[in-house]
Amino acid sequence: MLKVDLSGASSFFDAAGPDFAAAAAAHRTLAERSGAGSDFTGWLDLPQKVKAGELRQVLAAASHIRGRSETLVVVGIGGSYLGAKGAIELLRPRPQSGDPKIIFAGNSMSPDALMGLLEELGETDFDINVISKSGTTLEPALAFRMFRGLLEAKYGPDRAKKRIIATTDAKRGVLKTMANEEGWETFIVPDDVGGRYSVLSPVGLLPMAAAGIDVSTVIDAAIEAFAAMDQRSPENPAWQYAAARQHLYRLGKSIEILACYEPSFRFMAEWWKQLYGESEGKNGIGIYPASVEYNADLHSMGQYVQDGPRTLMETVVSFEKPQNEFTVPFAMGDPDQLNYLAGRKLSDISRVAQEAVKAAHIAGGVPNMEVRVEKRDEVGFAQLVAFFELACGISGYMSGVNPFDQPGVEAYKKNMFRLLEKPGAV
Amino acid sequence: MLKVDLSGASSFFDAAGPDFAAAAAAHRTLAERSGAGSDFTGWLDLPQKVKAGELRQVLAAASHIRGRSETLVVVGIGGSYLGAKGAIELLRPRPQSGDPKIIFAGNSMSPDALMGLLEELGETDFDINVISKSGTTLEPALAFRMFRGLLEAKYGPDRAKKRIIATTDAKRGVLKTMANEEGWETFIVPDDVGGRYSVLSPVGLLPMAAAGIDVSTVIDAAIEAFAAMDQRSPENPAWQYAAARQHLYRLGKSIEILACYEPSFRFMAEWWKQLYGESEGKNGIGIYPASVEYNADLHSMGQYVQDGPRTLMETVVSFEKPQNEFTVPFAMGDPDQLNYLAGRKLSDISRVAQEAVKAAHIAGGVPNMEVRVEKRDEVGFAQLVAFFELACGISGYMSGVNPFDQPGVEAYKKNMFRLLEKPGAV
Repeated sequence: MLKVDLSGASSFFDAAGPDFAAAAAAHRTLAERSGAGSDFTGWLDLPQKVKAGELRQVLAAASHIRGRSETLVVVGIGGSYLGAKGAIELLRPRPQSGDPKIIFAGNSMSPDALMGLLEELGETDFDINVISKSGTTLEPALAFRMFRGLLEAKYGPDRAKKRIIATTDAKRGVLKTMANEEGWETFIVPDDVGGRYSVLSPVGLLPMAAAGIDVSTVIDAAIEAFAAMDQRSPENPAWQYAAARQHLYRLGKSIEILACYEPSFRFMAEWWKQLYGESEGKNGIGIYPASVEYNADLHSMGQYVQDGPRTLMETVVSFEKPQNEFTVPFAMGDPDQLNYLAGRKLSDISRVAQEAVKAAHIAGGVPNMEVRVEKRDEVGFAQLVAFFELACGISGYMSGVNPFDQPGVEAYKKNMFRLLEKPGAV
Repeated sequence: MLKVDLSGASSFFDAAGPDFAAAAAAHRTLAERSGAGSDFTGWLDLPQKVKAGELRQVLAAASHIRGRSETLVVVGIGGSYLGAKGAIELLRPRPQSGDPKIIFAGNSMSPDALMGLLEELGETDFDINVISKSGTTLEPALAFRMFRGLLEAKYGPDRAKKRIIATTDAKRGVLKTMANEEGWETFIVPDDVGGRYSVLSPVGLLPMAAAGIDVSTVIDAAIEAFAAMDQRSPENPAWQYAAARQHLYRLGKSIEILACYEPSFRFMAEWWKQLYGESEGKNGIGIYPASVEYNADLHSMGQYVQDGPRTLMETVVSFEKPQNEFTVPFAMGDPDQLNYLAGRKLSDISRVAQEAVKAAHIAGGVPNMEVRVEKRDEVGFAQLVAFFELACGISGYMSGVNPFDQPGVEAYKKNMFRLLEKPGAV
């Protein structure tokens, strides 16, 4: 299992230190499903359920998509796309031979962005995976109406039916009704799993599998990861992270910067921001979740991190074993004065840079937490998902909120539907 | 010129309101070059100087690159790449016919990321534009050694010389010395312009021109924009923005979220984060610069913005005229219940959504500032750059810092060079 290292944060703790007893209590509340929002804790055993249930159908659907299409248009917003996008960028940043391109639509209403997607789609053969619990969220609903129109124009209404897969509610809603009437293949968004916790359901798994990610390994590794974190001791990485960040928050560290030295992690950071921001940001409290990409952002946000207000904590996700390796070449005459590094591995130099950054930031007053994952692969991804989900539930309960609702998301929707004069809107 | 609209922030101001007199004083200090860091205020008349000087050579070099190469590898970090990357994503998000691919290297030390760049490069014909004031910044220096090796292996040392362009110091430094010895074409990083203010110098202009952006129009529009903001009155958009955000900061709004409804704005937001974070984040003060992409992030960070700690202010960049337009189609039987929108333009619906979000966030306690740009084109880009740069200088002086240094960036570098046993490092 991944490891959490709090050594770079401990000098910032007060005498009492992180409240592991509170983490234990929150974990118990979660496991017993006795806390606020407990109807939405189905993600705790989601991987087992998927393995026993829909995994086979996901693999079959992905295989059909890969066989017949050069592009999969995934229509979804928020939790209906961030997990899959994060996984695909992390594990499959460029399509390999036989992989369809995955295009994410329905998360913008910009006509220029839509035109961009249509240019990317071009004349390729494509399928649509539309993901929405209700079918009424405006952004994906509009995009689906448009892409479905394209699909029907290209293949005719009957053949188009075979190229639409709806991931939606088991029983109710506009999208479920359409899928029933049209005979589209469907997958279920579980009732007891909120969008931001749904990446290990068909919501995330189908786009990932279509992109060429080995989702069977993801599911097996997630089952193991949740089991590993079932231990009830302060060594539990989810307890460590949850308790440490809540402790630092109480000590005035109000912004958490999630950093990674792999640029391919970018959308995993976006997934993490939704998970933590939406779970904890309510009732006027919550750590602000931000992210940076190192080394690049050492030369942009580095100044602020080093010398700005001391309200930051930093969490660094690192992958211990790179998949590739380069050695710094020797150069005759040493024109760029880098021969002192000739023969050294790039990964080794990068690790030194990471140590240097950690030491500098701690010295500058920024507590550092590390999340160390062995490899940037399916297993590492699954561990990160299980870890961050469990720690988020624990951390949310520790802070006294319901980590499974999102009442604030409704405010703009209500305004919008009223201004658009949607029938029935108030 | 672009417009700043503070109507969504004014209800949060105290009786005194934003200090426009202080903005005026800061503007005077800037213009008279009498403040801290005034040696680095060359960006104030950079567009005129470039127009009278290097613009022609930039256009010629870009034309050569476009004629002979399918890829341009831009090697640089921080201010040596963020502006160009922001511009290219905003104005040329996908290469058009005849455009080379632009690959940004030297901003990471991940072996996996480097392998990704090499895969993207493939067997294409390429040029290198290496951008570094000194040539000793480790990340780009390492990348340049590697890509130069590839170039020489592909074309031989002599032909490779014609495919390297160095943007560097006028006189000194490792990279300048190499360029002299090898006879590479060079462009100058001006002495009086820091990296984060350098996008309108050859640092940004050459990659932009190579990508197909009309940089002559950018420069002309930037000259006009700076001239338009030379007005000394509270209507000056730079005064408005600088004074309002400093006022809100003093009232406890410590995080500024830059939002845009165009996904292509993503790297302009990263450029903005460096500009403001590095200029203002020092001496233990500074607004934390964060960014979101709407509508997507309404469904991820939206909950936090609506209901989290009331320490946020929101600045929305909007483009008033889209380049493309779509109309919502009518659907027989209205299966998705969207026919109430049939016949409406997507841009019109998006505008309504933006109003709805603004109203919701203000009601939730988040002051809203708008920066309204007419079009997402070269002129709009130039206005944004001139505006954000001038406002940053003013805002920095108002907060009492030197907005043109970045002492904190050295801390990790010193550690790193010591740990790497660089000759002479202490």
